[in-house]
Amino acid sequence: MFSKRTEWDTDESEMAQAYRERRAQGLPVMDLTASNPTRAGFAYAEDLLAPLADARALDYDPNPKGSVAAREAVCRYYAELGAEVDAEQVVLTTSTSEAYSYLFKLLCDPGDVVLAQQPSYPLFDFLARAECVELEAAPLVYDFGWQLDVAELERRITPRTKALVLVHPNNPTGHFTKGAEAEEIGRVCREHGVALIVDEVFLDYALMSGDEQDRETFLKRDIGVPVFVVSGISKICGLPQVKAAWIVADGPGWREAMARLEVVADTFLSMNAPVQRALPVWLERREEMQGQIRERVVGNLAELDLQIAASAARGEGLVSRLAVEGGWYVVLRIPATQLDEVTALELLDCGVWVHPGHFFGMAESGWLVVSLLAPLQEFAAGITELLSYLSGRYTV
Amino acid sequence: MFSKRTEWDTDESEMAQAYRERRAQGLPVMDLTASNPTRAGFAYAEDLLAPLADARALDYDPNPKGSVAAREAVCRYYAELGAEVDAEQVVLTTSTSEAYSYLFKLLCDPGDVVLAQQPSYPLFDFLARAECVELEAAPLVYDFGWQLDVAELERRITPRTKALVLVHPNNPTGHFTKGAEAEEIGRVCREHGVALIVDEVFLDYALMSGDEQDRETFLKRDIGVPVFVVSGISKICGLPQVKAAWIVADGPGWREAMARLEVVADTFLSMNAPVQRALPVWLERREEMQGQIRERVVGNLAELDLQIAASAARGEGLVSRLAVEGGWYVVLRIPATQLDEVTALELLDCGVWVHPGHFFGMAESGWLVVSLLAPLQEFAAGITELLSYLSGRYTV
Repeated sequence: MFSKRTEWDTDESEMAQAYRERRAQGLPVMDLTASNPTRAGFAYAEDLLAPLADARALDYDPNPKGSVAAREAVCRYYAELGAEVDAEQVVLTTSTSEAYSYLFKLLCDPGDVVLAQQPSYPLFDFLARAECVELEAAPLVYDFGWQLDVAELERRITPRTKALVLVHPNNPTGHFTKGAEAEEIGRVCREHGVALIVDEVFLDYALMSGDEQDRETFLKRDIGVPVFVVSGISKICGLPQVKAAWIVADGPGWREAMARLEVVADTFLSMNAPVQRALPVWLERREEMQGQIRERVVGNLAELDLQIAASAARGEGLVSRLAVEGGWYVVLRIPATQLDEVTALELLDCGVWVHPGHFFGMAESGWLVVSLLAPLQEFAAGITELLSYLSGRYTV
Repeated sequence: MFSKRTEWDTDESEMAQAYRERRAQGLPVMDLTASNPTRAGFAYAEDLLAPLADARALDYDPNPKGSVAAREAVCRYYAELGAEVDAEQVVLTTSTSEAYSYLFKLLCDPGDVVLAQQPSYPLFDFLARAECVELEAAPLVYDFGWQLDVAELERRITPRTKALVLVHPNNPTGHFTKGAEAEEIGRVCREHGVALIVDEVFLDYALMSGDEQDRETFLKRDIGVPVFVVSGISKICGLPQVKAAWIVADGPGWREAMARLEVVADTFLSMNAPVQRALPVWLERREEMQGQIRERVVGNLAELDLQIAASAARGEGLVSRLAVEGGWYVVLRIPATQLDEVTALELLDCGVWVHPGHFFGMAESGWLVVSLLAPLQEFAAGITELLSYLSGRYTV
């Protein structure tokens, strides 16, 4: 009766089951996977949703790409980042997931291939499969910082490869695709006719110093390939629940791309009029939320480093954190003596919830991913418990 | 660079071009294609969007199927129609288009076939193609009312046929799939393993008298096949701009269907939290809008009949209207001496905008489709002009 493309494995994971059971028993959990800013103790202005009630949205003036006013607000956002974007290059979507689905439809027929950085957030598998697209890994390597293995990327490209997804900065590695690396990737994509999809939802959360060009939007870069930048206010404004995202088409062929995307968008017309009215206000007010989130992420990262240093000073030294340049997550290196899933389950028994590296497609064990979004006290206590668990397990 | 599935014909139609040019010249148009209730002179309460500003939606509690409260409001809607629906059977979507895309993904792999009534609204071609699904026609025949040619339907089913789309009542024919017909269709679907997708967006706009069972929701019918009812408040509440729709899964296998649909929905999470908060309020208040729309549709239909009768009394008799049982549209029979597109273009020259039958996939000429949604005065003037054009053209 049902399609192959929806033959998902819908069994509850061992981790999800353990978490559910622990909560059912009323036991506390220090959540180091936190990704929902609306539940992380930030102060949201009470009037933040008021623009949705604007009675002018009682008039419906459907525009497949979204209202001109809302798209111009997106252009202003990029102008403040130093990138010139025309409203004609923008199409609004209800989520970055919808943006991906539009782009997979635009670029791929059934059986075509999209390459995505590995490790990365495990949503792409579902998105690709739902759109009848094959997903393959473009491996990242870590050596004093993350980078894409461009030689391996080029080897993996076939005539069926239509796009490469870069998350900039990436989740969970937190690394930006640097200027020189983007040039090199651009050359490969140009030679093989591969388009770039660049997810910049975390762009505003830079943690790195150094060359500004290494963390700029791809819309400031001119690398001679079709580039589709995806972003949205889930992260930019800390408002995942209002469902406002977009695609900006840039580079060669963007007009033809937009003509086709407009037909796709016209078929769905998913974004409601009130959200389109409110989007310029939210973007205008984004620093209200960004400021709080940035402070949290920076504070938790400092706390993490302090605790890791203290642990090393005690002669334990079982954890190091990888370089992180942006975003809300950090990768921890731990001893690789057992499956990371086992470590994560044992940590949950101690009341600490973390992601094992495998969750993000890391090939080997020895990796945990923690979010920097949790309230400082919960984060600090969680890290203390994590270090204590590891020292208990590995130190005699 | 781009996919075959988005190789749409994006050229402006001759009709659209003529309409655009006429408006650019400042010439008036009597719009007998009106489908946007927010621009048809209805009175919308100023506070209708106020529930969107509810600050409780500052908290994001993602639920792939939509909040329980919103889904329970959908269940109450069906309870008032006499159908028992459990909230577990419901998944919310941002539009019926998104609902279709979820269902096409659920039921079809690339190359699988969906049958849809013909004539019908021409959105399905785009939706099917975007999801790599082949669309084929299930022909309707007219003989003292519309009905599906079930024998022909059965002949057209192959092992690749996964679903049949019924619009109930259909757009533009305005006919309901009657109880006995539903039984017969159910038998065919059961025998061939075909699921039913039933679009009931116009269900509340019945114009027929007679047996109530002939115009009831399919959720009251037990025909032994998987049924996916699609609806939304674009029509139910006259609010196309707020983007709230749903799927109700019923019949054999609905739990497995919902488990898969939940994963699809979890991949997109398209519907925003404020709309989910507001949905129960809007459904509660639906009669505010439905009452006005129903009065308009009934009034315009009476006006149409009066004018046709008067025209016949003058000895012209060039137009008859087909039986209409529900919805916002009516089909007119006109002389089939030239392409309907030519008639529509000539009518536009007279300031009247109508749809030619071909727009809805009617095979031969001799058909115009007019909306019953326009303000009464505009509608009456448009019909007068239409009749005058026809009598000038065909009467010596």
